[in-house]
Amino acid sequence: MKTLLQVDFDYQGPFGEVMSDALKELAATINNEPGMIWKLWTENEKTQQAGGVYLFESEETAQAYLEMHTARLTTMGIPNVQGQVFNINESLSAINQGPFNLSS
Amino acid sequence: MKTLLQVDFDYQGPFGEVMSDALKELAATINNEPGMIWKLWTENEKTQQAGGVYLFESEETAQAYLEMHTARLTTMGIPNVQGQVFNINESLSAINQGPFNLSS
Repeated sequence: MKTLLQVDFDYQGPFGEVMSDALKELAATINNEPGMIWKLWTENEKTQQAGGVYLFESEETAQAYLEMHTARLTTMGIPNVQGQVFNINESLSAINQGPFNLSS
Repeated sequence: MKTLLQVDFDYQGPFGEVMSDALKELAATINNEPGMIWKLWTENEKTQQAGGVYLFESEETAQAYLEMHTARLTTMGIPNVQGQVFNINESLSAINQGPFNLSS
């Protein structure tokens, strides 16, 4: 069952284009993670937070990614990683154009 | 600038199809909220949490929706509403098939 992963953490930058340039190679590798369908990269300079929202093929692949990603962020010196895994209510999301009906 | 809104809260159910039946009329009204492009409805029976991830046309419309929605949830007796607003890093999200490039 498709699963949403929501990750956010304290982050002091870089933001915007500087962030894009620094992390585009990392982004490309994320396409190779098992079960990954899409990721939206999130950032908020005002609240000093960043993260991502992901769609995965299954709860198992989402949980495995969350464990790997949390360890990677810790290695990068990023504390306070919040990660939550959710089922998607597909019939309600379909009413609101929710983009769950894509494949990896 | 398109803005992501991430909302989650403690929730004891109903989940799944019962939730869909109970909330489909509310879902239809969400399509009329200013700036709303899409919503993914999220739920997790194990952790007793639910929420939603939304794409809005602007930070202003996302913030206005968050204020209205938090008040509505409080009226429904739902405590501990977490709401976060993020910019989307579009160039990184484009690398990972992120569905930000839709219009309402």
